[in-house]
This record gives sequence, C-alpha cells and structure tokens, in this order.
Amino acid sequence: MSKHTVLPAEITSLLSAAGSRRAFLRHSAAGALAAGALAACKPDSSAMAAQLSKQDSDHSGGTNAPHPAVPALSKTDEMDRLHEAGIKAFPAKTEGMGNVLLAPRMEGDIKVYDLTAAPVQWEIEPGKRVNAWVYNGQLPGPQIRVREGDRVRINVKNNLEESTAMHFHGLEVPNDQDGVPYITQAPIKPGGSHTYEFTVPNAGSHMYHSHHNAAKQVGLGLLGAFIVEPRRPRAIEKVDVDSVMILNDGFHGYTLNGKSFPATQPIVAKLGQKVRVRFMNEGMMIHPMHLHGMHMTVIDKDGWPQPAPWKCDTLNIAPGERWDVIVNCNNPGVWAFHCHILPHAESEHGMFGMVTALIVEK
Amino acid sequence: MSKHTVLPAEITSLLSAAGSRRAFLRHSAAGALAAGALAACKPDSSAMAAQLSKQDSDHSGGTNAPHPAVPALSKTDEMDRLHEAGIKAFPAKTEGMGNVLLAPRMEGDIKVYDLTAAPVQWEIEPGKRVNAWVYNGQLPGPQIRVREGDRVRINVKNNLEESTAMHFHGLEVPNDQDGVPYITQAPIKPGGSHTYEFTVPNAGSHMYHSHHNAAKQVGLGLLGAFIVEPRRPRAIEKVDVDSVMILNDGFHGYTLNGKSFPATQPIVAKLGQKVRVRFMNEGMMIHPMHLHGMHMTVIDKDGWPQPAPWKCDTLNIAPGERWDVIVNCNNPGVWAFHCHILPHAESEHGMFGMVTALIVEK
Amino acid sequence: MSKHTVLPAEITSLLSAAGSRRAFLRHSAAGALAAGALAACKPDSSAMAAQLSKQDSDHSGGTNAPHPAVPALSKTDEMDRLHEAGIKAFPAKTEGMGNVLLAPRMEGDIKVYDLTAAPVQWEIEPGKRVNAWVYNGQLPGPQIRVREGDRVRINVKNNLEESTAMHFHGLEVPNDQDGVPYITQAPIKPGGSHTYEFTVPNAGSHMYHSHHNAAKQVGLGLLGAFIVEPRRPRAIEKVDVDSVMILNDGFHGYTLNGKSFPATQPIVAKLGQKVRVRFMNEGMMIHPMHLHGMHMTVIDKDGWPQPAPWKCDTLNIAPGERWDVIVNCNNPGVWAFHCHILPHAESEHGMFGMVTALIVEK
Repeated sequence: MSKHTVLPAEITSLLSAAGSRRAFLRHSAAGALAAGALAACKPDSSAMAAQLSKQDSDHSGGTNAPHPAVPALSKTDEMDRLHEAGIKAFPAKTEGMGNVLLAPRMEGDIKVYDLTAAPVQWEIEPGKRVNAWVYNGQLPGPQIRVREGDRVRINVKNNLEESTAMHFHGLEVPNDQDGVPYITQAPIKPGGSHTYEFTVPNAGSHMYHSHHNAAKQVGLGLLGAFIVEPRRPRAIEKVDVDSVMILNDGFHGYTLNGKSFPATQPIVAKLGQKVRVRFMNEGMMIHPMHLHGMHMTVIDKDGWPQPAPWKCDTLNIAPGERWDVIVNCNNPGVWAFHCHILPHAESEHGMFGMVTALIVEK
Repeated sequence: MSKHTVLPAEITSLLSAAGSRRAFLRHSAAGALAAGALAACKPDSSAMAAQLSKQDSDHSGGTNAPHPAVPALSKTDEMDRLHEAGIKAFPAKTEGMGNVLLAPRMEGDIKVYDLTAAPVQWEIEPGKRVNAWVYNGQLPGPQIRVREGDRVRINVKNNLEESTAMHFHGLEVPNDQDGVPYITQAPIKPGGSHTYEFTVPNAGSHMYHSHHNAAKQVGLGLLGAFIVEPRRPRAIEKVDVDSVMILNDGFHGYTLNGKSFPATQPIVAKLGQKVRVRFMNEGMMIHPMHLHGMHMTVIDKDGWPQPAPWKCDTLNIAPGERWDVIVNCNNPGVWAFHCHILPHAESEHGMFGMVTALIVEK
Repeated sequence: MSKHTVLPAEITSLLSAAGSRRAFLRHSAAGALAAGALAACKPDSSAMAAQLSKQDSDHSGGTNAPHPAVPALSKTDEMDRLHEAGIKAFPAKTEGMGNVLLAPRMEGDIKVYDLTAAPVQWEIEPGKRVNAWVYNGQLPGPQIRVREGDRVRINVKNNLEESTAMHFHGLEVPNDQDGVPYITQAPIKPGGSHTYEFTVPNAGSHMYHSHHNAAKQVGLGLLGAFIVEPRRPRAIEKVDVDSVMILNDGFHGYTLNGKSFPATQPIVAKLGQKVRVRFMNEGMMIHPMHLHGMHMTVIDKDGWPQPAPWKCDTLNIAPGERWDVIVNCNNPGVWAFHCHILPHAESEHGMFGMVTALIVEK
C-alpha cells in the first residue's frame, strides 16, 4: 500500500479486530474441527448439510490447480481451511437462545408478561462468552407477540446493579407508560420493579428496550421484539415463515439475534413458500442487509405499511428502524444473507458476525 | 467484558467522550441544581414543568425498594441524580439562539438579506462554550424564508481569517450563483464580500452553507435553513406549528439547532394540532431521529413531494438530506424526540446531545 | 476549541488524514501546476475549461479586497491556491481507466467474458499509486453489459496470492453459480480458474465482486458493474447518457470509479438531454451523493423499479446498494456532484476524493 494511502477509521478498527479474531480462531477453529462441527447442524438445515457435503467432493476437482498433501499448509490453504471451518460449523451450537416466544399469563382479560433484567454470561459464538445484561436470561429478550387491541401488563423486575426503565419503541402508548425516567416515571432502582399496562394501540414490528443509561444498557442486551399482529392482516402478510432479525453491533461485536456467525440461526423454508423477515436495528450503526439469490419485497416501515410494496436485494437498516420484507422462496439452495458492510461479515479467517443463510429446500 | 470482545470504533469514542463529559457534568450538574434549574424552563413548556413536578412525588413511591437517606449517595443514586438533573434543566437557558427568522430589507421588489460570516464563542449547553464560525452571530445562521418566485439578493461579508463562499443547497439557481469557488466564482477573501442574486426557483426545505474548505467551515457552523414556501401549498402542508431541526455532529459535538440537550428547545403544540418538522442534516453522520408516542408522516424529500406520504417513527437523515414530516398531535404528554444512535443521545450521566421533546399540551 | 468539545472518531480521522494529505499536496500540487494541468482536460469538458478560464479573470475583481503581489503567499492565499489547483487540474490525467465496456466473445449463442484477478499498481490521483487487486488490470473491473435472458459464461482466472471467488450481486442466478466458497463452490485457488455460466435472470444495475476474504478483496478492488438491460425498457429509461458511478472508501481512500478528485471523470451532457446515473456502493460507509443545480429522479433500487419515481438532490447510497436516477439536464453549467459527508470531499487543501461534476453544455 502506498504511504499516501488514507486508512479510514473503520479499516483501522477492522485490522485490530482481525487481530483479536485471529487469536480466537486459531483456538476455536481447531476445536470445531476436532469436535466434528457438522454434527452441530440442526435438523432443519438438512438441505445445507447435504449441500455442504457435496461441496466436499469438489474441493480438489474442477479446474483448480492440484494441491499436493504436505505436512504444513500454505498460508492460502490455512486461510481457506478457516473459511471452510466457519461454514461447516454453521449453524454452530452455543449455549442459550434468544427471542423465544413468551406465552403470557392471563389475569382476566389481561395478558401478563414478567420480565427480569439481570446480568448473564452469554455465548455469542462457540467458546466466546461475553458479559450481557438481558431480560429473562436470554439475548434478545423473549419475544412478545400480541394482537392490536389486546390489554397487556408487563412486570419489570430490576436485578441489575443500576436503575433501569422500559420503553416500548414504536408503540403509541399513553405518556405515563412510555418508560423515560424523570419524564414519564421514576427509574426502577436495583431490586425494584415496575408495572406497565396498556391497550396495544398499533400493529407492526416494534421493540422493547431500556431507556435509562441506554447506550450502555441496550448495548449490553436489554432489548427484545414486541410484535403486534393486526386485527385485519393484509393478503401480503399471509406467510409460511415469520422471522425476526435483530441487528446489533455494540459491546458484543456484530450479531444477529444475539449470536455471531457461525452461531447464527438460518431461516429455513420450502420451495414456493413465503418468508417474512422483520429487521430491527438495536445497534449504533447502519447495516445494509443483503440477501443472495432472491429479492426482498419491502412492505412495512416501523410497523406502518409502505404506500406500495417495493423490491430490493440490499436493505439499509438504521438504528431504531424496523423494516418488514417478504421473500418469495422461488430459488432453491443455501443463500448467504449478511450485512454488506463487509468488515461486519468477513475477515481473513472467513465469515463472522452478521452472517446467516436463507435455506430454500426443494 | 470478555477479552475476546470486539470494541467497534464508535464505542471507544463513546467511552472517551463519556470521560470528558463526566468531568463536565460533575461541575455543571451541581451548578444547575443550585440555581434551581426548573426556573430556566420557558413559559411554553409549562406542561412539562407540571409533569416533571408530578414525577417528583413519585420518586420514593411505587414498588421501588426504599432508599434510606444517607450522607453519601450510592453510585446508582448518583447516576440517577445526574439523569434527573439533565431532565429538570431542560430546556436549559444558554446564551444565544440560532435559526431566528431574518426579515428581509426590500430594495424595490427584491428581498435583500445581509449575512456576515465571523467567529464567535457559542454556548452549546450551559457552561460549555465552543469556537464557532457562524452567520450573523448565531448558530444555525438566521432562517431565510421566502416564496417560490421571489427575487432575492444575499450579501455575504467575510469576517473570517480565511476565504469562504456560499452554496444554496437544494436550490436550482443559475450556475454563476452556485457558490463553488473556482468553478462558479472566485472565493470571498477575508475582509471581502460577494452578492448572490436569483429568482427563487423551487419550493421546499433547503439550506445555505459554505462551500469552501467546507468540512471545516460547515463543521464550525457556517450554515442555515433556506425555506421556500410553495405558491400553491398542498392541503397536507397546512399545519399549526412549522419547525426546523438542523442536525449536526461536528467539532461541537451532537447538536440540534446548534444546542445540545438540555439546552435544546422543545417543540410545543396543543392536542389535535399538526406539527411540521423540517429535518436537515449538516453533519457527517447519519442520524435516525426517533419520536416517542406518535408517528411521523413523511411528505417531502429534499423539498420534493414524495409520491405518496408514508409513516414511520424513526427517520434516518443522512448528511445533506432534508426530510419533511407531519405529526398529528393526538397523544398528550412530553415525548422524547432523539437520535436513536444511542451514544449520540445518552451517557452514563443521562441524556445529552441530540435529544429534545415534542410537548403535546391538553 | 473548548476543552470540553467532543471529537467524534471521524473528525479525528479527518484531521490525521488531512495531515498526510497536506504533505502529499505540497508535493503534487506544485507538480500539477508546473505540468500545465489544464492541458489534461479531455475534449468533452471543453465547457468547463471555458468556464474555468472565465473565472480566472474574476479572481482579483468583484468586491473582494485587493491583494498586493508579495513574494510569500499568505496562509489564506496559499489555501486558495491549492483549492484552485485542484479544480484546474480536473479532470486530471492518470494512468489507467476502469469500468471500460468489455465486448464478449461469442461461443455459439453464449456471451463469454474472460476475467483475470491480479494485483496492479493503480494511480488513484496524479502521482498517488496504490496496491490494488483488480480484474483485467482495471479498477473498477470491466463493465459487463448484457440483456435479460442472454446466456453468459464468465471465466475467472486467479492470479492472486490467495484464493478467490466471484459473486453476482443482485442477479438471481442458480445457487451453484452464486460464488460463495464452501456454500456453493470450492474457492478458486491461486493459479486456478473457475467458470460461471447462467441465463441472465433479472434486469437492472448489478455488480460482480469477490465473495472470499471479501472485506480485503473487494476493498482492494475486485469489483465491477454488471448491467442488465431489460427486454422491454420503460419510457423513462430512454436517456442520452447512461453512466455508472461506483463508490468506494476502502484501502484506497474515497473514490468514484476507482479515481479520486481531481482524477475523477465528469459526466457530460448537452442542454435538454437526459442522463442516467447508476450509483453502486462497493465501500464500507454510506455516501449521500449530492448533485448541484438540478434534482435527480429516482427510478430503480437494486435494479428493481420503484413503485413511483421520486425526486431528490441528495441520495444516500449504502454499501451493496444500487440506485438509478435520471437527471433532466435543464440548467447549463458545471455542477459539482459529490458525497455530502464533507470530509469525504473537501479538505483544507481543496476538494478531493468523492467529487466529480455534471457538465451541461449549452
């Protein structure tokens, strides 16, 4: 590189991140291989397993130059081995899963949700544990899914070392339920609790998260999806797979639903099915999410229908935004699905961070 | 935090910013409390004052654990005290106000505006003064508001130590009025002046700013709103409150209309009224602005009507963009209104930077 | 600047970039002047040359203060001289041009393209050479332009020191042609090659680029435009000038089609003509592209028609996105056209990086 070359800050950051990642991967990739990483694949990704094992047989074929077996791998082969190990490990087993649907307790006609904020150790990817602050022990917090017009009560217990509060991002609740300390309520002190209650006012893909010391608290994981199903769904909303993809980029690195590749979970559909993806950005950076092989039809912004659906393959999601898209799964295969800020998705040691796949099974 | 954790550059920046902010707040928050910060509230925010004082009585109640009075505050209580001090100080009195409507001098049929670029000390938030380069002593510069088809003359005097020029961002003026040194004019030297004159060609929310050494000059404050009212307003444009929100993130930190929270000014409306917000980004970063409690209906992009209005609660504004939205104020209360890149809005010591409120009075 | 002033990371980066740029410009600007930079202007920018030379005669006139001729320039005059030198050098001659249309070889009904990935030294701006990895010796790689439904074959030869693969970003190809190593194919080893073949499935402005170690490989230049003309063009697509603008911000600094200002190429049209610009972002940052003097009508996103065209003057392009716009060239002159993140376009020494012009000749 020329000595005049300007290195934007993000590249510098990438290089140092790659450094620590390198050390981590030297350790973990060997372990993943030794443990037989394909065994970690979940049943619903059988199509991928089949496809990956077909790839195995291609590695020394085609028109590539032959590679004599030598005791020490070349730098290139070592790089490729790490790339392959990441792919083969996907979807890698880790402890804990977030965004699990939370069934309400019914108290009369009221749907009651109990959410406890507390610190946990969270496994972001195999062997990488981080300090997280989460609801009910999971990152993202449990998924709340209700219907427009439901009466809901949310009991928040604070087991953190500092005060907190809960904001229902996108829901047009009465002001005293808005969760902003010293504007709409007192903060919830450590050991304390607070109850929110309201009639769900508007449909769409919304979020709940801390609104106290939020750059830290949301960054550490105090967040979750709050999905409101409409009373009268539109025809375009009738889908076979309804998925949530929460983007984050804070203290835990680059994650989708609280996990980094290869520990992210694929979206799986059958050929001909329709998939809805509800993108939600809880981070501090934009993430233009790119789907391979098929386009996305954008239907909603922040839970509100767009005047007319429109198509794209790369959708820029800014912090606080939600975008809902529909994918008509008409192209079979394992399709990469990732943030197109490439240093959020790929290093010299293969894909990491904000990478998953949409698997369309024949 | 795990030693494997990746710290993106913005977090590192946040941590060091929080450091200097901490020192500042230790100093200023005490002062704000001693001075009786609520007294700084302006008359038009009486609803908020009433609501805040209602909050006071809630602080030791609810289901929170009791807090015995002890001489030294716990770390948590000290953090909460700083959060509260910021909210109570809002809208904090500071010296100087920008974006003040500038009445033209009439010379025949021509509306004449005199703008002088010069350095000032500008109070961004209570006690925090920065070096700024501004027009007519205010940041943002005075608001120019004319009508489509008006003849305008703008006399620019340069009292800076370096050359400058003025570009009318978004206005489709004749090329020789475009303000780009060495392409459309010679730069305006220190002590010199230059006159721009044109018939206002297109309606909408536009800007004027320096186009010479602009990364520095606009960053330091040489910018203002240039609003062009249409000859035939659309029905959707008939609003009760018409406000401008200029976003910046340069040398002066994160600001709305040249002030950081708690010195930002709230937008105040009565229940049932319609508010127009004209977002303009004069900074270097995106700012996804999030309104609590009500949605925004997007009507214009860069002064041009969108094909159909569309709704959102978080609108991503990129540098140089203008977006106009309408809010139907149907939900009473004090609603936080802030950039959802959380490190632009909240620190361990409470809200700061790109935070204001939309106050809907009953 | 106040000691309390927060310096966001990008400013810090700007300041250090300005430092190295300063050293560079001291060297290069003198050279450009000595070489008679205007001689580098291409024939199609004659309007600009004429306009610039008209500017020359204005420099000491107008209402500016007189400047006595002194041996040493003041700091202001030196700054202005550097600004002027940059403008006068535009469009500066450099070695190599990218995005050159590649004519296919026909093998029966198949359009065959041969692309070789290899390192080169690439002249980004006069005198600034960087290490780049490119296709067929040019940055961006050669433009592929085909029609919906064409059968194409792309032979990729890898002359790099590491493995690679090619992804057709936006094209809905069969999965085994998608170019993601270990998911859809084995990587192409150094010295190896690979053939992609498919029937072009969807129209629009797409891209081809590496999908192996892509943060590095795309950052170094393994990218190009893949334009697919529709079988039935819409009326709005009938334009006089059809241009591609590939944005990048990686290891090579801020570039448009592989060059930094003043080595970027202007878009040239005659008064009354229609220009299409196909924006493509291959970088890691957003770039809100601002056109002076005329608005842009947005017609396509990622190659898909928007439901209704809409107007703007500043269009935010995120990494991986493509946006197509139409400009009705109804305002004659030389119009600046640049990224409105000002530190991507202007320094204390004048415009640089992501700056070009749309020249509308009478």
